Amino acid sequence: MQDITETLQAELIATAHALADAARPVTLAHFRDPAMQADNKAAGGFDPVTIADRGAEAAMRAVLAERRPDDGILGEEFEPVASRSGFTWVLDPIDGTRSYISGTPTWGVLVAVNAGAGPVCGLIDQPYIGERFFGGFGAAYVDGPLGRKDLSVRQGRSLAEATLFTTFPEVGTPAEGEAFRAVSAKVKLTRYGTDCYAYALLAAGQIDLVIEAGLNAFDVQGPIAVIEAAGGIVTDWRGNPVHDGGQVLAAATVELHAAALAILAQVHG
Amino acid sequence: MQDITETLQAELIATAHALADAARPVTLAHFRDPAMQADNKAAGGFDPVTIADRGAEAAMRAVLAERRPDDGILGEEFEPVASRSGFTWVLDPIDGTRSYISGTPTWGVLVAVNAGAGPVCGLIDQPYIGERFFGGFGAAYVDGPLGRKDLSVRQGRSLAEATLFTTFPEVGTPAEGEAFRAVSAKVKLTRYGTDCYAYALLAAGQIDLVIEAGLNAFDVQGPIAVIEAAGGIVTDWRGNPVHDGGQVLAAATVELHAAALAILAQVHG
Repeated sequence: MQDITETLQAELIATAHALADAARPVTLAHFRDPAMQADNKAAGGFDPVTIADRGAEAAMRAVLAERRPDDGILGEEFEPVASRSGFTWVLDPIDGTRSYISGTPTWGVLVAVNAGAGPVCGLIDQPYIGERFFGGFGAAYVDGPLGRKDLSVRQGRSLAEATLFTTFPEVGTPAEGEAFRAVSAKVKLTRYGTDCYAYALLAAGQIDLVIEAGLNAFDVQGPIAVIEAAGGIVTDWRGNPVHDGGQVLAAATVELHAAALAILAQVHG
Repeated sequence: MQDITETLQAELIATAHALADAARPVTLAHFRDPAMQADNKAAGGFDPVTIADRGAEAAMRAVLAERRPDDGILGEEFEPVASRSGFTWVLDPIDGTRSYISGTPTWGVLVAVNAGAGPVCGLIDQPYIGERFFGGFGAAYVDGPLGRKDLSVRQGRSLAEATLFTTFPEVGTPAEGEAFRAVSAKVKLTRYGTDCYAYALLAAGQIDLVIEAGLNAFDVQGPIAVIEAAGGIVTDWRGNPVHDGGQVLAAATVELHAAALAILAQVHG
């Protein structure tokens, strides 16, 4: 981090926002599209989700080609681009496809940039609400319907008082589901199906834990950047770095992280 | 319905919107309130949800006292008011308390007015997104981030192609859960925990089925008004009117309604 000058930090932050700005109109053009009401076959193979997904990532790659041509790219929809600068952008144009096709505004555009390992800054953007959660280089904030607010995880909750969000039972193996349920049985409230928006709520101090499985690097690097900048912790289910994806445990505090990790390790081992 | 003149219809519609307008600032004042980050005990019994809930309903009752003093009121938070006009307003100031306390913008303010039986018009309002789904007197529309759009349920999906939303497993008895899961096993996609927003998505043609249990009149009359105006069907699990609450089955089409009803009846009896 000490190698990234303030000027470069500002450029990376501006680029992250420019990427999200470029993706917004493309994803919104197809969100709640009446064409999605038709069966895919009846509509002759037209698939608005794929079109939106690829279109949004293409728009973001065009921004990078212009602003940061030497940076690498790891995106969901197209081939990776090797980095010549040491920086790599990690892009998920629509995280939460099931939300997107159902009209629920809890999907998001995920952007992060890393210098080889974990992300140095990133964001979670929800275009329909017009809400963007940013984290990195000492800043953590959301811009949304209520203006700009600082992001900060909440403190002082025990596992028994915690709120846990997840995409289980839609994701994960049976064994992973068992481990998830072992934690769920110990918390106050478990809520389901909120996709990447759950990470934003954790960073915003609204919930305490997120547990997921089967994630890719592009699903998790934006959230890691936002949550870490807000004071939270994101690892895999063994406590190791998870920026390459896999089983994810995100927690507001070290105490909650340790408590959930112990249960996951015991059950999933 | 033939007894309600166009002038009276316009007055009821304007009143419904005035009620939602009155509730919005009250619910938003406490949504994502940092005070909610504190444990209730530590905060000395201060409960932002209860304050927002009661404050929003009080604001709505003040509107009715001014505009429609002879109408009855059935609200979640205060005592019922008997109707002298034949009309009764059914109010849920915050439907989806678990969403509200978790920061997820899928809670809503529910408003309906009935003439003794089912609602004649009603709405689902999501203050944080700034989105309002209205139905009644031949109109069905949403006002939101993308402007005003007509609401219409989608057609032509079989049960195997359907998207089902629910608050199970957070609600319901074990027997109700079993019946729910029997339907869930037959659909393409099941999503969880979206509260009243699920009804709005059904009216908007984004999803096909909603199954809930243990609802009250104020949980369901706003949604019934919106969904019926958009062409959908809402009954209990036996196909009977459900405006007094209970087990709810909402469907986009008569075919999907019949298919889900058959499974619920077989399992739940």
